Order: sequence, then structure tokens, then C-alpha cells
Amino acid sequence: MQDLVIRLDTESKKHLYEQIYEHIRDEIKSGRIAYKEKLPSTRSLASYLQVSRSTAELAYEQLLSEGYIESVPYKGYFVSRLEELYQFSSEFRDEEKNINKSTEKEDGERCKVDFSPNGLTMSEFPFGTWRRITKNILSQDKKELFLPGKAQGDEELRTTIARYLHASRGVNCEADQIVVGAGNDYLMLLLRYILGEDIRIAFEEHTYPRAFRIFGLFAQKVITVPWDEGGICVEEVQNSDANMVYVMPSHQYPTGIVMPIGRRRELLNWAAQSSQRYIIEDDYDSEFRYRGKPIPSLQASDSAEKVIYIGTFSKSIAPAIRVSYMVLPRGLMKKYEENCAFFSSTVSRIDQTVLNEFIRDGYFERHLNKMRKIYREKHEYLLEQLTPFLEKFSLSGEYAGLHVLLQAKEDSSEEELVKKAADEKIRVYGLSEAYVGENKKQRHCSRATVLLGYGGLSMEEIRFGVEALKRAWL
Amino acid sequence: MQDLVIRLDTESKKHLYEQIYEHIRDEIKSGRIAYKEKLPSTRSLASYLQVSRSTAELAYEQLLSEGYIESVPYKGYFVSRLEELYQFSSEFRDEEKNINKSTEKEDGERCKVDFSPNGLTMSEFPFGTWRRITKNILSQDKKELFLPGKAQGDEELRTTIARYLHASRGVNCEADQIVVGAGNDYLMLLLRYILGEDIRIAFEEHTYPRAFRIFGLFAQKVITVPWDEGGICVEEVQNSDANMVYVMPSHQYPTGIVMPIGRRRELLNWAAQSSQRYIIEDDYDSEFRYRGKPIPSLQASDSAEKVIYIGTFSKSIAPAIRVSYMVLPRGLMKKYEENCAFFSSTVSRIDQTVLNEFIRDGYFERHLNKMRKIYREKHEYLLEQLTPFLEKFSLSGEYAGLHVLLQAKEDSSEEELVKKAADEKIRVYGLSEAYVGENKKQRHCSRATVLLGYGGLSMEEIRFGVEALKRAWL
Repeated sequence: MQDLVIRLDTESKKHLYEQIYEHIRDEIKSGRIAYKEKLPSTRSLASYLQVSRSTAELAYEQLLSEGYIESVPYKGYFVSRLEELYQFSSEFRDEEKNINKSTEKEDGERCKVDFSPNGLTMSEFPFGTWRRITKNILSQDKKELFLPGKAQGDEELRTTIARYLHASRGVNCEADQIVVGAGNDYLMLLLRYILGEDIRIAFEEHTYPRAFRIFGLFAQKVITVPWDEGGICVEEVQNSDANMVYVMPSHQYPTGIVMPIGRRRELLNWAAQSSQRYIIEDDYDSEFRYRGKPIPSLQASDSAEKVIYIGTFSKSIAPAIRVSYMVLPRGLMKKYEENCAFFSSTVSRIDQTVLNEFIRDGYFERHLNKMRKIYREKHEYLLEQLTPFLEKFSLSGEYAGLHVLLQAKEDSSEEELVKKAADEKIRVYGLSEAYVGENKKQRHCSRATVLLGYGGLSMEEIRFGVEALKRAWL
Repeated sequence: MQDLVIRLDTESKKHLYEQIYEHIRDEIKSGRIAYKEKLPSTRSLASYLQVSRSTAELAYEQLLSEGYIESVPYKGYFVSRLEELYQFSSEFRDEEKNINKSTEKEDGERCKVDFSPNGLTMSEFPFGTWRRITKNILSQDKKELFLPGKAQGDEELRTTIARYLHASRGVNCEADQIVVGAGNDYLMLLLRYILGEDIRIAFEEHTYPRAFRIFGLFAQKVITVPWDEGGICVEEVQNSDANMVYVMPSHQYPTGIVMPIGRRRELLNWAAQSSQRYIIEDDYDSEFRYRGKPIPSLQASDSAEKVIYIGTFSKSIAPAIRVSYMVLPRGLMKKYEENCAFFSSTVSRIDQTVLNEFIRDGYFERHLNKMRKIYREKHEYLLEQLTPFLEKFSLSGEYAGLHVLLQAKEDSSEEELVKKAADEKIRVYGLSEAYVGENKKQRHCSRATVLLGYGGLSMEEIRFGVEALKRAWL
């Protein structure tokens, strides 16, 4: 029994039974209490440690449930054979802790202000609501939530998304056309098995580089075509042998161009000319638009079922929400069923349920309005701060999204602008970083152009950053 | 002001400010309070509704933050232009609710007992711990958790997994060889871009059908080879032109075979013969082993860096945890970096952090021991119940995993056994459901064999199910 001299810390947050459980467990693990050794009865342990009988019982239950001890009827509790137990050596966990410490240091010195076009304001993430819904769902103890869900995603969530997309983006679809997945990249990987081998896809010479790279992994041919103030040049697509096009009509990245209705018709007409042709519409940040009503999606005016619509909650809620969705034209559903319907979903049913309630109960709507207001204010503040630049630079892409573009009127190189900003410890992004075309001499932007993203910056950072840019460029 | 006759329900769980906020919001949405209309000051609203000033202020703040009203200095609060706001028509949300109701009915009449090999005991999922860790992490308000993480997964989690795999499965790897993803299916999709075009992969004639289908999507050639009591016949692999093999050495699905050390060496030798050859080890349910120590993984004895090790937490914790991992041989890391390192992770950093703490702080170890104990008890109970069958059936696969196999000694067809069970409302699974070979006459199991999974069944269900099977088969 001397092994069971347990120093119980009544101050500790840890419940007494936990302390007893852990002490005995460690005694068993260390071998100080050996296999087959008999433990005191809960009664004698309780009186010995001067704790309640039930506390002692709780501790033993824990040990029983984890297989450290066995209860032999009429005989008592005995230590079980340890080799049968999983044990991570204790140093395993300690080293672990150290590692965390060390890595915590990592995010240290960076530039003072980073005008990243991917920056987002995270402070407004509705922690409280999200936590409450999550907690709620976990406490419901719904067994089915812990079973693998449908490959396409839960019907409730898909129905909610379908209605949201219709209400906010004019997208016409039924829940059964929606595929939910953990991020756009994953959905694009699936497209390979939905669209088949013969993918010859056209991108604008400036586009979202990640999408370009992903299609580059499996597409038979990746074509880059020029763009103008209306977006992708459809006649160039027409002249190429592309059978697919990847576009962002609501707010092109990086150019910020909103595709006018005329160009949209051209594009839809191009697609309608062949049963093999499809348009992939990436509506990545359509929620953030600052003048007038949001422009409907391209899919909304697609009568020929030619548009594959892709969107995500990673930008509108938080990157932590790894939920994207794509809307497939009816014609492609069969292929999806054949090749992808047996995949297990990449989004847990818990996350799907939380998200569903978040949208369904109106929190998403409220969050979007809040974020749009915040981003609009930052947007307007940035534009106001940028007025001194308008003599030497022209501004564009200023009606939507989370970044604007500055194009030098005089001849100066992009590298130069980026470098000068860097000297002031300010990070700006050259348009050419999103250039994927062949000819190094970039059409349409012979003049130096930089992106200024503000989604992740505070008013103060914007002011500070722009001040520094004045010193750098003016 | 008559618009602002608000029936405040002091009984309601809803805070008064919420009620005021919602009332005014709906008045604005419905247009009963028009654009530009002036709202009462918070003071007069407060006295008018007999609520505290701060309550009125809270309500207005909410309306402001969501852009329903604007505050004009020295003038007061005015209704803003609504078209600029996102609005999901209210019927949108109501219909939503109905849908949920209707779908809730869905899980209705099924068979009485389903001996599914995929069944898991969910009741033991450590809700409390999981919820506490999650809540904790969400409250820490760590901004970086809401930013997209590394494609490979967070370093902390990968380090924890590496240590867990070493401690429990003898896997030799560094954190930087681990890729975390939302499920095995996703990781296998990635393998296409890591292993390249030339994938000629061999499977046992009975194997995990999903893996077989996924590789079928992109592999140049999918080869099926026979197996015997030692698992896959390596000489047959040798004789084929396969450059890769997919195996489950710790507990083959569906046969339940544990690959003996000799066969493991053969297989590793086969792989060592060419730089192009790789072995994919799916260690899907290795945690559940009931006799002696867990057998180390194949990767543990791989000195030539030929084994791609894949595992998941979906089985050991819960299918809801969409986290799998693969350990890549050093030689493949370069390809991964080139082709996949730019992908955004399919697992949110929140989930990764929760999981990391769950493992690091010992809850996973405790959970595993608990589950192993529970499964062992069900396992032993099932075997005990099955003794009357041993005259007519031989039992196999009984040392590990969550299912056993019954093979008829006399000639009787699998269909017959499944059918007879179904007549008693019992679902059992024919071995042939996992058959992927070409020749319909299945080698090695000319005699009818059925799988009995028990992971998802209570003792009572096991008893009831086996009783019914006696009536059906004996």
C-alpha cells in the first residue's frame, strides 16, 4: 500500500478521482504495481485517502475502462497485463510540449504592412455563435453525425447552399447538383474524373495561379489567352482548340475586372456551340461588392447547362472553414455518379451540420453584411488615402473584392515599385506574379502594375502602409 | 413611432436587445420603415420601451454593424439603402426548416441487426473532451488558426503523428515525411501526382474495393493477384508487370489475414529490386488487435524506403474526424513538393489543433485503450456465441480488426447464406462483395464465406443476431 501514498491536491482544477486514477495508472505503467497485483477495495482506498467512496470508485472505473485493471467477482481489482495496452512513452508527450513551445516562436519578424490580396479580417469571425452551434451539435449526441456522410455532402447543407446561391447569386440549381468538398483544390481534382481525359482548358494570361497549376497537373492542354478591359478575349478562345474555360466573371483575379454582360453572352455562346465545351466559373469573392447590387453569377444566365460554378466559404466566413461547393450541370451528374460518388466526403458531418445551421438560422447573412460593411469602410479609406497617387498612377478594380490595382502612368518597372516598397518594409504584389502566359512581354500591362490587398489590414495599418508607399513612390 | 410597438418577451431566452434588433431589422426589411427614415435616439427608445439605455444601444450597434442603419454625427440614426444588403428571403429560411423536419424521418425501417464490417461503436466518442478542447481553442482567438495552413498539415500535428506512429506502430519517419489530408481517398488522389503516370498497381483478388476503384480511375494498369493464408502471393506479383502493390499487412480486408514476417520480407525484397517499385500499406484498423502486442507495421521493417504508409483517425476516433495521414519515403518527397505542395490543406487548422491536443495530452491513448477493451469484449462475446457454428463453419480473421469470417464447410452458396440471413432480417456480407479479380470462379474461397462485423453492435444485438443466424443456417 505504500505505493498508494498519493499527494492529493485539493486546490488543483483536476478532480480528485482524476488524480487518484493518474497516480495508480502511472504506478502500473512504471511497474511499481505489478501485473496481477491486487488493489485495495474502493472502501479501504477511500478511507485510506480520506476521499468519498464514489471518488475512489470513479478512479477505479476509469482504470477498468482503459484496461489497466480488471475486476474479478468476489475477489477484487487486479492489475492487467500491460503489453496489451497502448502506451506512448511518457517522454513522447513531454518532448511534444517542447516542440510546441519552439514552434510558437516562429511567427516573428515580417514586413511592417503586407498588402496581401489574400488577407482577410479574422477578428470578426463569429466565434461565439460558431462555438455555441458546435457545442450544441456535439451535445445532441446524434450518432449519425459520426458516421461517414454522402460523398456529395449532406442533403440539408446542399439544400441550404442551393437556396443561398439562388437568393444571393441567382444561381439556378437543385441540391442534387451540388458537390461539397474540403476546398476548391479538391473539387478541381474531382473535375478531372468528371470532365474526363480530354481537357483543353483556357485561362486568361493573368489568372489565379493555383487553379492554373492544378489543371496543369492533369489537363491534356492548358492554353493562355489575352484579356482586355472586358475580361477574357472570347474570339481568342474561339481560335484556340480549347474545350473549356476557367473564368472569374464577378471579380477577376488579379485584374479585378467585372465581366460585362456582352462578354458573358459571347462566352456562353462559345460554350453552347459544342456538347464538349464547359465554362468553369470561380466565384471566389463575389460576396464583397461595394457599389449597388451584387452582379448575378454567370451561371445565372446560363440556359444551356454549360457552367460549372465553384464557390467557397473559406473567404466569406474564414479560411478555417474548409468547405467549398461546386454546382454541376445536369449533363455532368452522370459522370460524377459513375466516377466520384463512391468517395467518402472530405468534410465531416459535424462541420457540415454546424455550417448548415450557421447559414439556415441567418448568422451567415448577418456575418456577410457585417463583413461587407467592414471591408467597404477599409476599401473607401484606402481609396481616400490613395488620392495623392492618382497623378502618377491609375486605379482599377475598385468596385469589388478585397484588393485594388495601381498602374504606373510613367514608365517604371514593377520590380522597381515592389523593391522600393520593400525598402520601406511594405509588401506589395506585382501583377506579373499572377501571369501565366507564354510571352514574357505581357500584353495589356506593358506598364508596371501592383496589387494592394487590404482585407487583412486595420485602418491604422492601411494609413501607415500608404504613408510609406508615398515615401517610396511619390 | 407606432412601427416600434415591440412586444418584448421578458420570459424569452432571447436577450431584450436581440428582440429589439430583430423587430427593427424586420421592419426595415419589410419596408415598413423606409430608406433614410430617422430612428428614435437610443435614449427615447429606451424610455419608450422601458428598457435600459445600454440595451437600446446594443440593438442599434447590431443594426449598425450589419449595415441596416447608419449613424450621422449630430443628426442620429437613419435607415440605409437596403439593396446593398444581402437578404435571403425569409421564406428561404422557413422552407429550410421544413426540409430538415422531413429528412429527419428518413432513418426508419432497416434490418434488425447489421453485421457491417464498417460498423463502429460511437457511444464512446469522447464528446466531452473533444468539445472542451474545441471550445478552448476557439476561445483562444488565435488568429493564425483561421489562416490557411501548410498543404502538408500543421507541423505540430505532423510531429505528434510521427511520434504516435513510432510509439504504437514502429513506423520510422520524420514529421516532414507526413502528409495530412481529409480522408484516405483524398490522399490516394494525391498519390497519382506523386507517383506519376506510370502506375501499374497490384491488388489481392479480395481487397478494399474503394481503394481498387480509386486507383482504377488513374492507374495505367490495375492488376489482381491471388492470395493464400499468408496474404498476397508475391511470386504472382513478381510475374506480373506491376510496379506497385496495395496491401493491408496488419489486418487484410476482407480476409482478416495478418501477413507473416516471411511474406513481408518477400514483398519488401520485391520492391527493393527496382527504383520504380513501391508498396502502399493501408494500416486502416491496426489499432484493434486482441492477442498479444500489436504487430509492427510493414513500414517499420522497410529499410529501402519503399513503403508508403497510410492511416486514418476516422476508424480509431470517429468517422466524423476526417483526418488521414500518409508517410512518404524520402525519395518521393521531391515529387510531392513539386506537384502537391501548393495545394491548400483539406483539414482546417482548428481540427488539426484539436486533434493534436487530443493526442498530445494523452486522450487518444486513453480512448484507444477504452475502445480496444470494448471491442475485445464484443469480439470475445461474438466468438463465444459462434461456437455452435463451428461444426458447419470454420472461423478465421479472429485476432484483429472489427470483423470475423465464417466459411461453410459443406457446399452451400454465399448468396444462399446471405439470403437466409436476410429472411431473418439479419444483414451479413458475402466475401465476394470484396472480390475484384477477373475470373468469376474465385480462387481460395470456392466455399461460401461471409463477414460478420461487430464494431457497431451492442452485446444484445450480437446475441440477437447470432440467434437469428442459428435459425437461418444451422
